[in-house]
Amino acid sequence: MFVRNAWYVAGWSSEFPSDGITSRTLLNEPIAIYRKRDGSVVALADRCVHRLAPLSLGSREGDDLRCGYHGLKFAPSGKCIEIPGLEGRIPERARVLSYPVVDRHSWVWVWPGDPALADESLIPPAIGLDHPDWTLKTGELDYEASHQLVNDNLLDFSHLSYVHKVSFGASEKWALTRPEVTMLERGVRVQRWIEDAPRRNFATNVDTWSSYDFLVPGVLLLSSKVYPPGTAAACNHEPPTIAPLPHAVSDTFSCQAVTPLTDTTSRYFFSWGPPAGEGAEATAQMLLGIAHQAFAEDKAMIEAQQKVVARSPGVSVMPTPNDHAVLAFQRLLNKMMQAEGGRSVPISKSLSSV
Amino acid sequence: MFVRNAWYVAGWSSEFPSDGITSRTLLNEPIAIYRKRDGSVVALADRCVHRLAPLSLGSREGDDLRCGYHGLKFAPSGKCIEIPGLEGRIPERARVLSYPVVDRHSWVWVWPGDPALADESLIPPAIGLDHPDWTLKTGELDYEASHQLVNDNLLDFSHLSYVHKVSFGASEKWALTRPEVTMLERGVRVQRWIEDAPRRNFATNVDTWSSYDFLVPGVLLLSSKVYPPGTAAACNHEPPTIAPLPHAVSDTFSCQAVTPLTDTTSRYFFSWGPPAGEGAEATAQMLLGIAHQAFAEDKAMIEAQQKVVARSPGVSVMPTPNDHAVLAFQRLLNKMMQAEGGRSVPISKSLSSV
Amino acid sequence: MFVRNAWYVAGWSSEFPSDGITSRTLLNEPIAIYRKRDGSVVALADRCVHRLAPLSLGSREGDDLRCGYHGLKFAPSGKCIEIPGLEGRIPERARVLSYPVVDRHSWVWVWPGDPALADESLIPPAIGLDHPDWTLKTGELDYEASHQLVNDNLLDFSHLSYVHKVSFGASEKWALTRPEVTMLERGVRVQRWIEDAPRRNFATNVDTWSSYDFLVPGVLLLSSKVYPPGTAAACNHEPPTIAPLPHAVSDTFSCQAVTPLTDTTSRYFFSWGPPAGEGAEATAQMLLGIAHQAFAEDKAMIEAQQKVVARSPGVSVMPTPNDHAVLAFQRLLNKMMQAEGGRSVPISKSLSSV
Repeated sequence: MFVRNAWYVAGWSSEFPSDGITSRTLLNEPIAIYRKRDGSVVALADRCVHRLAPLSLGSREGDDLRCGYHGLKFAPSGKCIEIPGLEGRIPERARVLSYPVVDRHSWVWVWPGDPALADESLIPPAIGLDHPDWTLKTGELDYEASHQLVNDNLLDFSHLSYVHKVSFGASEKWALTRPEVTMLERGVRVQRWIEDAPRRNFATNVDTWSSYDFLVPGVLLLSSKVYPPGTAAACNHEPPTIAPLPHAVSDTFSCQAVTPLTDTTSRYFFSWGPPAGEGAEATAQMLLGIAHQAFAEDKAMIEAQQKVVARSPGVSVMPTPNDHAVLAFQRLLNKMMQAEGGRSVPISKSLSSV
Repeated sequence: MFVRNAWYVAGWSSEFPSDGITSRTLLNEPIAIYRKRDGSVVALADRCVHRLAPLSLGSREGDDLRCGYHGLKFAPSGKCIEIPGLEGRIPERARVLSYPVVDRHSWVWVWPGDPALADESLIPPAIGLDHPDWTLKTGELDYEASHQLVNDNLLDFSHLSYVHKVSFGASEKWALTRPEVTMLERGVRVQRWIEDAPRRNFATNVDTWSSYDFLVPGVLLLSSKVYPPGTAAACNHEPPTIAPLPHAVSDTFSCQAVTPLTDTTSRYFFSWGPPAGEGAEATAQMLLGIAHQAFAEDKAMIEAQQKVVARSPGVSVMPTPNDHAVLAFQRLLNKMMQAEGGRSVPISKSLSSV
Repeated sequence: MFVRNAWYVAGWSSEFPSDGITSRTLLNEPIAIYRKRDGSVVALADRCVHRLAPLSLGSREGDDLRCGYHGLKFAPSGKCIEIPGLEGRIPERARVLSYPVVDRHSWVWVWPGDPALADESLIPPAIGLDHPDWTLKTGELDYEASHQLVNDNLLDFSHLSYVHKVSFGASEKWALTRPEVTMLERGVRVQRWIEDAPRRNFATNVDTWSSYDFLVPGVLLLSSKVYPPGTAAACNHEPPTIAPLPHAVSDTFSCQAVTPLTDTTSRYFFSWGPPAGEGAEATAQMLLGIAHQAFAEDKAMIEAQQKVVARSPGVSVMPTPNDHAVLAFQRLLNKMMQAEGGRSVPISKSLSSV
């Protein structure tokens, strides 16, 4: 039920110190992650070949990892290179899976698919915390819910009108206007103007330009810009080319990633902030508070939804016109899963086709 | 495994305020319950047709309910009457189940069966908290046990001799004498005299007349009256027609309801008290304390029993003569479930038939 | 998955007082254990024949046990001897399983197999707490892990080098030298010299003689003796016949028992101490502290291993030469289980045979 040939966020770079071994479960698979002496990351299946003890309870020796139970030693390639008590040759099958893994944009990305296809250029162009143009603050949230439900949430911003009425000050227009949805090679682009509507932190109504790419396997890169009323019409409802309002939060960027831990749990990583500059720290901190408030609202709704889904086998969803991007992304994932030889998720008939 | 064409107690009337939406699970089915502006009760399946979010997280608009995730709006009939973003006609299948529901005798009753058969005259004639003749205090207990085990407990008072020796001061005679069991159209009637036996709150031995109806799906209406020794014989062991002893607790009434939440959990509602009058408040309060003590004893035993049952698939019970009413009620439920096209619970061979 | 014709430790003798009824689950089977008036132990299946209530919630009457729900009474043989309300004959099938049970060596042993084969001479010759020659202190640990993983741990001391480097001060030699493994009729004997190595509580390197029997179903009887370097060679690496170093902990004995509670949980009982004599109390207390430290290390590793095993169906282990005793004991259990008509655990191909 997962696309495997994709880069999944295993965590913030800072979660993987230069010493120690960190265990992370991605796509139901426990993975022991550590850094070599040169700082590069290693990701091994977290299960010794001997008696299935977790390697993450072991210790590092140089660039290698020694199991903490009976002392078998593994190279970064996954190959077992020492078995205490064994005098003869170590058999070929004494080997654990080694995952392609890259530290980039302040996230550590793991590729659970075919290593031969692990192309680093497919890593989504997120903005890292050290990017000179942006000041971003980060957060992280664990969901007792399938990654799919979290993705669906991010692909349909009509929920802002109901779930985030207070936290984001979102008007009903998010639910009543349709965004422009464009297919990308590995994702969808969702863009729209919300015109002449109230917005948190703004005293009067504004026009908001919202544009995001949602990329496989579940990475959202979102730009929001705020303008005086009338700007959307003046731009002919095309993407704006002029500068937004001079205001602390009239121009922000957010990177978000949804990673399946198991079939029914997931981890949500996010950053948000304004362009770098004077006052950016305080603005980013204020935005982080809003994000925590809003994402707690999402979490409450999505985890409740997951419980209903779990006790409703065979009950299908009934998409509305606002599900355009949801369905487009699901079709993309299905195509990829089928190409990988996996099963696809049934696409529900769209309501508009009834 | 449930009779569906019956009125189940969803809760005390006071649990459902005039504003707000309350979620209750009955027979494994989550139900969103709220009141219309006229105070009448609405019970809708707690699952939006769109993406299965629970409707109980939504908000009321007049007599309608709006989903809190993407804003679909439902009428009390269950029909979806608004889909944000949809311009065309709302399809017929955009509809959630609406359960027949009635507020009566201080309980809210839900009918999970065929709505066409939802006859209000089938609501058991419980005594409500506002009844002028009685002063009742109430309690509620959640069981990690099937409703069937709780029903069995209430249908065989021989357990009073062992489980409630202290709390009710029950003598061994509850186990050693047989009650008269009469079939009713939708239940069984269990009546008996316990003669010349000690009883809590009485200084000397007494005769106790105990009579209750146990009605589908699991409602107990119990009258207890206490007399001087010899009364049972003087009455020829028939129901008494004379006034009980002049004593604060010589005449009490209790209403109890067992509602299956899921296959293995249930909720137990109870009220108990003396006739209205001077001192009735204090007496009812005292009885409530005894009830809490006694029902905690039942809960400990029944939940332990449930655990044994759960790990004993295929092990059957071995009824004794004291199970007469248990078996009669189970046969009645089976007949009703078969008539509804469901499966029946196998009746164990009675020990007396061995 | 269990050998049934064997004596399992249900608990320390002191866990079963002269009054009261204690419930213990062994091999997935709940058992009600109590003592007769003469102090001897009775073990009955903890499930009443009537409505499956646990008998351990009942009460003792003389040497018998009365169910606390509806009052059925059972003799130590398991036969029901009273059914309240029944006038006729009690049927033969009104009977619960009565397990052979013996109180010996400070442990209560239960035989879950064929009672006709319950031979007390098969009880492992553990050293009880009242043995005049030894001063032992005891502990107990519950594992969220199969008994098999705990047994494996005890059958391969190569883990001392990695898991107990600090707590036992174990050198790498435990992993790098091979013990002598001898088959016994109902177990394996594991013996070895660890030569010229550091050891906790000793200022300089020592030779250690370690010898234990590991007996069906999972009982370890371990003798450890410490000598000056060179002793092993002087003894021609045979068992020592001379007195160990004059040192508080140069001669210790430990009894340990692993009992499966369920398929995936187990209880571990242990005692450890020096010969009786001056200072033995303090020494035993000190050793108990070390044991708690070391066995907590085992517990962390084994419970983590259990989690990996549980999510790795079909993944087989890959034995190393250090698994000699592990495999020998597993083969012995398999032979016994097959003789009992049960299934056997697949033996993995030994690495040395690759």
